[in-house]
Amino acid sequence: MTLSVAVAGASGYAGGEILRLLLGHPAYASGELEIGALTGASNAGSSVGELMPHLPELADRVIEPTDIGTLAEHDVVFLGLPHGHSAEIAQQLGEDVLVLDCAADFRLRDASAWEQYYGTAHAGSWPYGIPEMPGHREQLQRTKRVAVPGCFPTGATLALLPAVAAGLIIPDVAVVSITGVSGAGKKASVAMLGSETMGSAKAYNTAGKHRHTPEIMQNLGEYTDESVTVSFTPVLAPMSRGILTTASAPLRGAVSEGQAREVYARAYAEEPFVQVLPAGQQPHTQHVVGSNMCQIQVEVDQGAGRLLVTSAIDNLTKGTAGAAVQCMNLALGFPETAGLPRAGVAP
Amino acid sequence: MTLSVAVAGASGYAGGEILRLLLGHPAYASGELEIGALTGASNAGSSVGELMPHLPELADRVIEPTDIGTLAEHDVVFLGLPHGHSAEIAQQLGEDVLVLDCAADFRLRDASAWEQYYGTAHAGSWPYGIPEMPGHREQLQRTKRVAVPGCFPTGATLALLPAVAAGLIIPDVAVVSITGVSGAGKKASVAMLGSETMGSAKAYNTAGKHRHTPEIMQNLGEYTDESVTVSFTPVLAPMSRGILTTASAPLRGAVSEGQAREVYARAYAEEPFVQVLPAGQQPHTQHVVGSNMCQIQVEVDQGAGRLLVTSAIDNLTKGTAGAAVQCMNLALGFPETAGLPRAGVAP
Amino acid sequence: MTLSVAVAGASGYAGGEILRLLLGHPAYASGELEIGALTGASNAGSSVGELMPHLPELADRVIEPTDIGTLAEHDVVFLGLPHGHSAEIAQQLGEDVLVLDCAADFRLRDASAWEQYYGTAHAGSWPYGIPEMPGHREQLQRTKRVAVPGCFPTGATLALLPAVAAGLIIPDVAVVSITGVSGAGKKASVAMLGSETMGSAKAYNTAGKHRHTPEIMQNLGEYTDESVTVSFTPVLAPMSRGILTTASAPLRGAVSEGQAREVYARAYAEEPFVQVLPAGQQPHTQHVVGSNMCQIQVEVDQGAGRLLVTSAIDNLTKGTAGAAVQCMNLALGFPETAGLPRAGVAP
Amino acid sequence: MTLSVAVAGASGYAGGEILRLLLGHPAYASGELEIGALTGASNAGSSVGELMPHLPELADRVIEPTDIGTLAEHDVVFLGLPHGHSAEIAQQLGEDVLVLDCAADFRLRDASAWEQYYGTAHAGSWPYGIPEMPGHREQLQRTKRVAVPGCFPTGATLALLPAVAAGLIIPDVAVVSITGVSGAGKKASVAMLGSETMGSAKAYNTAGKHRHTPEIMQNLGEYTDESVTVSFTPVLAPMSRGILTTASAPLRGAVSEGQAREVYARAYAEEPFVQVLPAGQQPHTQHVVGSNMCQIQVEVDQGAGRLLVTSAIDNLTKGTAGAAVQCMNLALGFPETAGLPRAGVAP
Repeated sequence: MTLSVAVAGASGYAGGEILRLLLGHPAYASGELEIGALTGASNAGSSVGELMPHLPELADRVIEPTDIGTLAEHDVVFLGLPHGHSAEIAQQLGEDVLVLDCAADFRLRDASAWEQYYGTAHAGSWPYGIPEMPGHREQLQRTKRVAVPGCFPTGATLALLPAVAAGLIIPDVAVVSITGVSGAGKKASVAMLGSETMGSAKAYNTAGKHRHTPEIMQNLGEYTDESVTVSFTPVLAPMSRGILTTASAPLRGAVSEGQAREVYARAYAEEPFVQVLPAGQQPHTQHVVGSNMCQIQVEVDQGAGRLLVTSAIDNLTKGTAGAAVQCMNLALGFPETAGLPRAGVAP
Repeated sequence: MTLSVAVAGASGYAGGEILRLLLGHPAYASGELEIGALTGASNAGSSVGELMPHLPELADRVIEPTDIGTLAEHDVVFLGLPHGHSAEIAQQLGEDVLVLDCAADFRLRDASAWEQYYGTAHAGSWPYGIPEMPGHREQLQRTKRVAVPGCFPTGATLALLPAVAAGLIIPDVAVVSITGVSGAGKKASVAMLGSETMGSAKAYNTAGKHRHTPEIMQNLGEYTDESVTVSFTPVLAPMSRGILTTASAPLRGAVSEGQAREVYARAYAEEPFVQVLPAGQQPHTQHVVGSNMCQIQVEVDQGAGRLLVTSAIDNLTKGTAGAAVQCMNLALGFPETAGLPRAGVAP
Repeated sequence: MTLSVAVAGASGYAGGEILRLLLGHPAYASGELEIGALTGASNAGSSVGELMPHLPELADRVIEPTDIGTLAEHDVVFLGLPHGHSAEIAQQLGEDVLVLDCAADFRLRDASAWEQYYGTAHAGSWPYGIPEMPGHREQLQRTKRVAVPGCFPTGATLALLPAVAAGLIIPDVAVVSITGVSGAGKKASVAMLGSETMGSAKAYNTAGKHRHTPEIMQNLGEYTDESVTVSFTPVLAPMSRGILTTASAPLRGAVSEGQAREVYARAYAEEPFVQVLPAGQQPHTQHVVGSNMCQIQVEVDQGAGRLLVTSAIDNLTKGTAGAAVQCMNLALGFPETAGLPRAGVAP
Repeated sequence: MTLSVAVAGASGYAGGEILRLLLGHPAYASGELEIGALTGASNAGSSVGELMPHLPELADRVIEPTDIGTLAEHDVVFLGLPHGHSAEIAQQLGEDVLVLDCAADFRLRDASAWEQYYGTAHAGSWPYGIPEMPGHREQLQRTKRVAVPGCFPTGATLALLPAVAAGLIIPDVAVVSITGVSGAGKKASVAMLGSETMGSAKAYNTAGKHRHTPEIMQNLGEYTDESVTVSFTPVLAPMSRGILTTASAPLRGAVSEGQAREVYARAYAEEPFVQVLPAGQQPHTQHVVGSNMCQIQVEVDQGAGRLLVTSAIDNLTKGTAGAAVQCMNLALGFPETAGLPRAGVAP
């Protein structure tokens, strides 16, 4: 039997990356998965060849309007739409259709946090797609609805979760995440022009204003009874892909670097997509470009009394589309790693 | 039966890219191919994890010294050594070992051209690894020795060959190729520092001095009886990967753009890794990053009386390691496209 | 007496660069020049601080609507408007107002070339602002109207003019110019996003379609009686500023590199902003960033029978705003080099 | 009278930037300052034209060996040497020679901190060259010896000092500074190749290991009696110049954003090179490239209970050479701002 996959919002960066991964998926090669409708809004009627020339195998495919009738004919639907559009579509898709939402709509469980940050009515919450969070993989294996996580929360959660869960730190964390510009999406703007972003670094949506702040707090809060505070500072750097997260928090009493490394090694021992680097080696975003890996380093800064964790992911792969395909694999019973490169495109 | 593959010079950029491709090769997944010895010179004794953190599956592998005994135990040997070292090694490897040389040593058939450009004795020539050149694929299917082509010659040859073969142009061509900095290899130097190369473009080895000049001439010369001249200007641009080739030459009499497009369409109709873009669309190097594709546009500039062809490849993939794996596939009887992505990692 | 300077279209990249240079001009420091009205269209009402935070001295100045009454009160008016808007404004400004037009409107003398490339009625032509073109400096010293040259024509003209004038080459030239992305201006678009332009090179407006083609032909044509043909290929590279021009043409008979170097050395011996580099040294765009210099190398490729000239300029400085200020200096009787850095901001 | 200026280590990035600024200094234009000996170690004998083509006015100058006899003939000596070489030279220079040391040698007052971080004997301390630190400008006006500050400490100190001095925060600060690659200097290395640094972000010398950590602590410690702790994380981003500092610390009790802004506005009201941006506007490193400005934003993150301050400087200008020239101006009695651009080279 062939499962048919649709991608709504196919011509955005998340959509394009989902397609890139599906084209390399063994189930696509074997015919178990087929790429069905690709839909869009303003791009409907244009070909993939015009919009995404990096996908020559699909060059002749035409983007159709995002329409419930079109999507409903598929077994799997990826939603790569702007925030706030997923709920209406999801409600109309059958319960047996696997829906993976790359927008934020179903990530937050706390309606008031949603309303504060997104300003609309809360649509509810779905199983949250970081399989590496203890307890989540099991949920993701038995769901037809997945809230694909945000890119910054993925990097920050994988960096901090073992320390929070093991009680190594007081959960009052400072996270500064340096991101590539593709995170801003494929939307015309002066601020995101090459001329404005090359050769430049800048922070934005600082001091609690970034919408990923409550998502990070929710994730860390699952593993501690203490109140979690997060100072989150996203920084735009002149690269297309990648997020380097630096996260630090006060140590809870005396913790040696060896102890901290042991906690992380144990937490991620069985995880195919998380690698704790050897002592002395820092993650570089270049090393995970195009891959679904998260590379991590953990250190104790005794002088400052803080734990420092750094992590590198590709915002479009492990940070979005790779996570979505990883969750699809879990939900469909494929090997979790199918179609997801562990090797990065470096240099 | 499992074929064992060794990579000499594994920690350079060509070696690393060969390994990245092999890790995604279906014959590696199925166990038909295994990755054997990885060798190096100054890096011997270091781990892949230290040297190439983007290849986590091989992190614990250790680079061995490049030694004939080590290499000889394998069925396939990729040589990613500096120019001039391959002949000695190749002579000592059995005739049944498939040897793919990524250096220039066996590319040129003309000993005097070799001596003029490389300054050493000519080692001879091997079947030349651009399967898209008419006549070459058949040779590559029955050889145990492959001269993997240079990166610039690949971009320039695929751009110009149909026009030369069809006699559309007088073979007096001007080629300006804009390359990413990984083409200079992984060798410490002030000139190639990030601070010297970011935000800057510069030509180098201009006016006939670049060693790829005779290789381009040799390739084009196979398809015409006329004398071929090439003005070749390589330009370094601030990107890691990619070569954009712009090639122009005088039209031979009246040629319409439609005729030229038809010649190119026919020449590459069956080629899995060459795509002639629709009229009006220019190749971007970004669209072929990490892929084995060559994207091409062909135009007639009636005002200047010249044909203009542009092509984009990834210098490390189709320009080196991808070509090497493509030739390996041919020589071993695997599907030619096995393990070679057609989708680029964009944006 | 204080001369008052207005800038129309002040918030674009050309306008901003003119302001940067004026702020460093000794006549501004001494009070001989003052910065008057700064005007714009959609940005009217916004402050310089919001629009151009790199100009803190002017942070509190507000952009006014582009209005003839406002501009007419000034002694000098720089026009940094989109093509086609300058004629109407210029006509209404008094004959004693020095007007420097950074758009193309008054560059071409041939009305049919204008109409072919710009599609509107020809507004006429003004003295053309490359003082290094023999005969032009004198004109520029006695005019109140200056057509500031295009960025590509500046790089190509300075590269080729001595060879054309001395008859070293047959004027059938191939020009490939690699430009930074600021050349596309400060206008929202998907194609010019950082994510689309970083890590990528692409040609555009190829095969005679770029509007700077007839301007290059006009400039070279002033120094030869032969018919000039230009194959012009602009390439976008991932840097904000800079144009590297590579220009080649067939040698006319036997020319040695020494002879060619001598021609160039003589042509530019007295020019403060053109430097012919020592043999063996190629221009890098980085070395002229923010400066008004053009660095040039000239070589003879005997194998290809062609002269190769490379030049580097900053597209916003020598390519636009620096040229405009240089022409202002000439027209006002200031030292030609006043306020124009010769040192580049490198690395 | 003409003052003669020598630069030791002239061909490094700090040396080159000092020369760029001196060439634009009004005292150089007027003949009050002349550029004397330029010295180097391995580059002695080479011309400025070869080593620093961006300085065409000095192209014919030759780098001399760094030798006390050569330097001693000057009125002003800038030292741009590797750490640990300045003391020996400085001792031999007359007390009336103004010596500005761009290395770390005389920055730290605490010998044990020096020894811990630099591993050699402590050479002592000199007046520290951040004139914006209360009390320092006066010292710098009457000294012949200046310890030019480190680039990261400049960005972090200007960001945090008003908050520490006013007691707005508990001085337990987390600083993450994103730097361009020119900070690593002009020294051949694989890790700093363009291919390794483009498209990539990575932290380095983390968790208290960076040598600028004690310098930041010393600076903040001057304005509080409390013990200062600093968690300092430098991050390398793919740009040549610029440091974006993000600094946060726990608020001491209830502080409104208005109060915090007021403290910063007051602290920097008279400073020519520090600009507190309007609320809502973040500093971009692009806006200060080539300029001596520090642009700052200050915010209160009530949710996290922290003050967040971001600052942007050019690491080579305000972060090194600009600070050195600013201190020279003070020591020689020139206007403090002479020769120091406030306008950045953007975009």
